[in-house]
Amino acid sequence: MRGAVGTDDNIQKTAVSISARGKALPASPIRKLIPLAEQAKARGIKIYHLNIGQPDIETPPEFWAAVKNYSNKVLAYGNSQGMADYLKKLSHYYHRRGLDIDPDNIIVTTGGSEAIIFAMTIICEPGDELLVFEPFYTNYNGFAVQAGIKLVPLITRAEDGFHLPSESAIEKVITARTRGILYCNPNNPTGTIYTDLELEMLRRIVLKHDLFLLADEVYREFVYEGKHKSIMSLEGLSDRAIMLDSISKRFSACGARVGNLVTRNRDVYQASLYLGQARLCSPTLEQVGAAAAYDLDDSYFMKTIDEYRRRRDVVYKGLMQIPGTVCINPGGAFYIMAKLPINDAEKFASFLLTEFQLNGKTVMIAPGPGFYATPGLGQKECRIAYVLNTDDLKDAMLLLKAGVDAYNSKGK
Amino acid sequence: MRGAVGTDDNIQKTAVSISARGKALPASPIRKLIPLAEQAKARGIKIYHLNIGQPDIETPPEFWAAVKNYSNKVLAYGNSQGMADYLKKLSHYYHRRGLDIDPDNIIVTTGGSEAIIFAMTIICEPGDELLVFEPFYTNYNGFAVQAGIKLVPLITRAEDGFHLPSESAIEKVITARTRGILYCNPNNPTGTIYTDLELEMLRRIVLKHDLFLLADEVYREFVYEGKHKSIMSLEGLSDRAIMLDSISKRFSACGARVGNLVTRNRDVYQASLYLGQARLCSPTLEQVGAAAAYDLDDSYFMKTIDEYRRRRDVVYKGLMQIPGTVCINPGGAFYIMAKLPINDAEKFASFLLTEFQLNGKTVMIAPGPGFYATPGLGQKECRIAYVLNTDDLKDAMLLLKAGVDAYNSKGK
Repeated sequence: MRGAVGTDDNIQKTAVSISARGKALPASPIRKLIPLAEQAKARGIKIYHLNIGQPDIETPPEFWAAVKNYSNKVLAYGNSQGMADYLKKLSHYYHRRGLDIDPDNIIVTTGGSEAIIFAMTIICEPGDELLVFEPFYTNYNGFAVQAGIKLVPLITRAEDGFHLPSESAIEKVITARTRGILYCNPNNPTGTIYTDLELEMLRRIVLKHDLFLLADEVYREFVYEGKHKSIMSLEGLSDRAIMLDSISKRFSACGARVGNLVTRNRDVYQASLYLGQARLCSPTLEQVGAAAAYDLDDSYFMKTIDEYRRRRDVVYKGLMQIPGTVCINPGGAFYIMAKLPINDAEKFASFLLTEFQLNGKTVMIAPGPGFYATPGLGQKECRIAYVLNTDDLKDAMLLLKAGVDAYNSKGK
Repeated sequence: MRGAVGTDDNIQKTAVSISARGKALPASPIRKLIPLAEQAKARGIKIYHLNIGQPDIETPPEFWAAVKNYSNKVLAYGNSQGMADYLKKLSHYYHRRGLDIDPDNIIVTTGGSEAIIFAMTIICEPGDELLVFEPFYTNYNGFAVQAGIKLVPLITRAEDGFHLPSESAIEKVITARTRGILYCNPNNPTGTIYTDLELEMLRRIVLKHDLFLLADEVYREFVYEGKHKSIMSLEGLSDRAIMLDSISKRFSACGARVGNLVTRNRDVYQASLYLGQARLCSPTLEQVGAAAAYDLDDSYFMKTIDEYRRRRDVVYKGLMQIPGTVCINPGGAFYIMAKLPINDAEKFASFLLTEFQLNGKTVMIAPGPGFYATPGLGQKECRIAYVLNTDDLKDAMLLLKAGVDAYNSKGK
């Protein structure tokens, strides 16, 4: 509430208040268990972190070498659209992926996060709607509040491997304020890779209803089954497709904050450039490192992907040892969203950190509800990020099984 | 215009349209002369860049050493509020400046830009108003469009050294939608340092009218005359003061994209943290470099400031050689906003790049209108950034004088 204009000497007592959207900003559901984890660590408990997508894979030496060999004496502003050399490298990389994307289709952003905020701001007025498929990457919520837009969630289910709803179910929620559909493929948090038929359906819908289609493809390389198809290869969407990308997972460089937006729509490009000019540029040094990383050939990814595939198999096998668990072995990313035989994932996650331990060890998971916008959904689900080595993961999955037993035997 | 929902096979012809705010984003007025500059360079003309605040001063070796000695193998996410070590260094630095600011009053942001966007988003609903003093830092416009807020400009004049309007003039434009006052001190683009009396007036106004007070203090150290007083030292504003800061100019590290927001208001802090959590973190490596730079003692700044003072004196002296020029020797930052004896600064800036040269050289300036929101203002003004060495600046000022003569003798 805003106070009245002060007219007496007591004016210092009037409390000034932040905006309603400032108050609506969500706390990170992944991060709110952190204090419990810190207390557990203080008690000497070892925690396997399955709760956050911070890979343990080393950032490529080529990245570090480029950063450390940078010889300019002044760390100057780069171009607002990204450094010219880096844009060329990106374009090259996309061409290697069979995507005809030129440097002037790309705006380098500060992480994939900024690419998403730019896209939301550019295609939506405040109050406009974007369709998303829940469970979804939880930070879309914060970006939506910041951009003043509304996310309209469509439910996908563990039993269906979190594949998309039917065309009619999607069309039913389109309103006069719907401006686009945002999907993540390979998906965070579910690991699902959408089929060509699903992408064809989205294509039909956005053409029919005059919408933008936004694809978060930061996990493009992390594919273990089937084949990933990029939004930029869909026909007839040159005006409508916006791809959101990042080096964070691709090169295990989350702290670099180097992402990018890709579009063939010149208005979207121009508006992104203007947003980019306002904030001047993305980090210079990290673009230099990223440019070197994109020189790596695909053997780099093959090695990484083999490692992640082994990890996924360990986690999936471990989950299948917990009777009553529902999940379909996902094709990509490095997450599994599993429905566990528990009544409340948030209580269960807290229990694992506060009451449970086995041989001085426990696990930390991301509770399902944080990935849903619809209240009451995801209560039995948790997201497991397989970003540890396979030995640790094996141990962690045994702990998870024991944790489920202990939680249920306490009658929680 | 949004197309109607397609119902026939022609749906691919319906053009999808970006949002009104996407269309309202301003082009950078500083950057739009760049193509003319590139053409001049292609003709072999040497250009002295007085148009952009990219310092030539070397980034401290301590910054580079910290970055290059960083030994982690994984470039991981940092904390959303900033790396713990860096927050401590910042708090230390502020205490050295006589400001009682603790690590938990600080949120590290991706450049000062993000700090400003966070503050606008947190204190304003879409459509709310912030008072600013024009001429102002031109990118405030882009941030305001992104945040969906309205900047209400109050005019300051070259003849008054761009000091603030009267208390009654400021109060006159406050409406029910006014949420705060944003000022920059030392000022970009004018170089003005506000007096204690001016700051006391702003303090009275925000208390009386229940507003936030936002201060962009990225040029804090760049003071050549008088004394800079920080917003964080004003009494009774613990709830209302938000300071916006950055290492870009302080350590000549514009490409690092490391800024921060400072507040003692817990709601503003919390909302900033949530915005920070959504985008995960600011660049990790550059915070490591910045932390090392803040270990430098004030002899570093004294050397830098002596150099800038000499530069300022060269530019001011040069301007005084151009009859009819109006400007008061500014006390801080590294800009001078001068009213020149010309009819149109934008035409003059183009003229310098397209028609003028002397001994194969010319100068590039930032035309005044880009720093004003009110149409028609600043037409005779230009901003000069003194970010070149004194020899180059002497030459540049002679060229500027010759440029004015040539422009006027052509009867433009």
